[in-house]
Amino acid sequence: MFSEEHRLAGVAYPEGFTAAGVRAGIKKSGNLDVAVIYTEKEAAVAGVFTQNLVAAAPVHVSKVVVNTGTAHAIVANAGCANACTGEQGLQNAEKTASVAAQALNCRQDDVVVASTGVIGVNLDMEKMEAGIKNAVSKLSREGSVNAGNAIVTTDTYSKACATEIEIGGKTVKFGAIAKGSGMIRPNMATMLCFITTDADIERNLLQNALSEIAEVTFNMISVDGDMSTNDMVIVLANGAAGNPKITEKNSDYEKFYSTLKNICTELSKKIASDGEGATKFLTINVTGAETFKDAKQVAMSVANSPLVKTAFFGEDPNWGRVICAVGYSGVKIIPEKTVVKFGNIPVYENGLGAKYDANELKKVMAAHDIVIEIDLNIGNVDATVWSCDFSYEYVKINGEYHT
Amino acid sequence: MFSEEHRLAGVAYPEGFTAAGVRAGIKKSGNLDVAVIYTEKEAAVAGVFTQNLVAAAPVHVSKVVVNTGTAHAIVANAGCANACTGEQGLQNAEKTASVAAQALNCRQDDVVVASTGVIGVNLDMEKMEAGIKNAVSKLSREGSVNAGNAIVTTDTYSKACATEIEIGGKTVKFGAIAKGSGMIRPNMATMLCFITTDADIERNLLQNALSEIAEVTFNMISVDGDMSTNDMVIVLANGAAGNPKITEKNSDYEKFYSTLKNICTELSKKIASDGEGATKFLTINVTGAETFKDAKQVAMSVANSPLVKTAFFGEDPNWGRVICAVGYSGVKIIPEKTVVKFGNIPVYENGLGAKYDANELKKVMAAHDIVIEIDLNIGNVDATVWSCDFSYEYVKINGEYHT
Repeated sequence: MFSEEHRLAGVAYPEGFTAAGVRAGIKKSGNLDVAVIYTEKEAAVAGVFTQNLVAAAPVHVSKVVVNTGTAHAIVANAGCANACTGEQGLQNAEKTASVAAQALNCRQDDVVVASTGVIGVNLDMEKMEAGIKNAVSKLSREGSVNAGNAIVTTDTYSKACATEIEIGGKTVKFGAIAKGSGMIRPNMATMLCFITTDADIERNLLQNALSEIAEVTFNMISVDGDMSTNDMVIVLANGAAGNPKITEKNSDYEKFYSTLKNICTELSKKIASDGEGATKFLTINVTGAETFKDAKQVAMSVANSPLVKTAFFGEDPNWGRVICAVGYSGVKIIPEKTVVKFGNIPVYENGLGAKYDANELKKVMAAHDIVIEIDLNIGNVDATVWSCDFSYEYVKINGEYHT
Repeated sequence: MFSEEHRLAGVAYPEGFTAAGVRAGIKKSGNLDVAVIYTEKEAAVAGVFTQNLVAAAPVHVSKVVVNTGTAHAIVANAGCANACTGEQGLQNAEKTASVAAQALNCRQDDVVVASTGVIGVNLDMEKMEAGIKNAVSKLSREGSVNAGNAIVTTDTYSKACATEIEIGGKTVKFGAIAKGSGMIRPNMATMLCFITTDADIERNLLQNALSEIAEVTFNMISVDGDMSTNDMVIVLANGAAGNPKITEKNSDYEKFYSTLKNICTELSKKIASDGEGATKFLTINVTGAETFKDAKQVAMSVANSPLVKTAFFGEDPNWGRVICAVGYSGVKIIPEKTVVKFGNIPVYENGLGAKYDANELKKVMAAHDIVIEIDLNIGNVDATVWSCDFSYEYVKINGEYHT
């Protein structure tokens, strides 16, 4: 459903949206580092944010914007997280919004701001101001690729997708860019995701959809178990498609919801798959739990186990580490009822290692995408967590990433 | 307080104890792999065990032994965890005890059994039986070093210590051996620790002391956040010292308690310091919490963060990752009140990075032992967690450790 052409169009694919990404000198590398996404037509805005109590300045400022219900723009930078920067940090985040508002001729509280990068360093506002003005002057329908590249940090590529559906006889488009990589854990990680749509939808429904969807998509990925100070997912819906406004949970809402969920799922998987140093993409399906919370807790316990992650890096079918992580998850599992499969091959059942064809299992372990199935056989609730392995490269990236 | 001479004497330092370690062929490396510790005089026994619901067979069997209140021997092997081995595993653990009981001329329920190593593989009982008989034939006052070496897995050295105190005019001795390395997290890790003493102490008091002490020692270490299926700490107290039997919480009990705590603290620190691939020993002191649970939760959140661990491996004073892990710990901290120090140098306070002398901080980061101080400034309860960094070597050990 997500074509390459759509991917390039990204957040500027929906009608009425433009984007740009420029070099402002915030990243030490000299790469693109300031992005602006804009809609002249006022958009309904929804957002979900990190639950880290040490939240960055842009998180505080953008929550206020999301609470107003409408927005015209998103300004984001990479290279500096503007986190742990106190009063000065808040002033800089507000100044970022105000500079963009002036350049775009909108209100300051119509500008969402986001940052990612090193914690504890103040934004260089001279560079930011010049960068924002430069980006605004370059806004175009072709600007999403640059905007996407301007928000990445240690990602190996910029995540993007776009698609369209029909609602009430009108074509409704969606686009998105995202970055992930390190500090990736549920409840928002160092993850920024900006989604645009020209759908016309009532603001509270939009927020409701995003909040629900984030629980089963972005909040179900784990790279390293670290939850960042800066995460946010923002959706702008400007109504330019001219569809009959979605104001209740009808079939139009269902269509909208399912498309938004597909986008969030796609990007979540890409973020997990491109985790720092990752060589494997792990999908952990827990079935047969009593509650979603239990299923998620078991899956996260496995996803966050360094021993499991290093075993998959080594392509070792070490199911003992998986069942061990299931056992200490805090959920009351019954070891004798639990079944663990790698791919579709049972490796643990009846409290014992299962007999399997070692060659078949070797093929499963050698693949890039590996599914770990854990059936608790207690209830009937499922959860899926996306994760990755732990490699030398992860240690290298994070041991050598100097502040 | 722990001399080299005492360390070598280990578990055979207290009167009436002997030990041995032999090669039985369980470890692929061909190293020592079966240990026996013995006291002819019946000992009061206390134990604490893994809380992993997928507990290994020897854990189930040894819990029964500990519940009888008395024991004569501990038999332990490395190279095979006898975990996820079902009914056969239980039979093998019982058989291990019965073979030892016969060789030692004691009852089967007087023998504690312990295993560590690969999960999901059955013990080779032929090798075990020969190994146990061989070890029993070699029991001596000089056998602790071999016994210690027989229980290690990926440890770089065998942990041991011994000491003596005076109680009621009598010399009371203590000795201990321990192994750690991977799957190390609170609530018992792949950690085995056997402590002997010739103190005379009532069994329930002994269990009470051990349970309390484990909470603030062994349960306060974290190498990788993984909690194993096999952990146990066992204390045997055979009363051979002839001290007035400790039957209440009097000053003799306090002396005994404080010595047992020193031993457990010493071994906990050694286990954390010798974590798989560790190049740094991290002490995380959380002060000013409202409860011990809160203080421990904050310290563990920092100790288990792969981003924090890799930063210390890289000697990068990345306090942003530390305060980030404090912020997502789940404890209601107040960022503006929280102070973080590396060594005695404040790096974060008042919601901001602190000004520090970069050269002084560099010295702190370059040391092997690093103290991270986190003052929450909310209450007056403290907790200390011992941990280590995350290195290439950790990934190597665990990516290449094949089942």
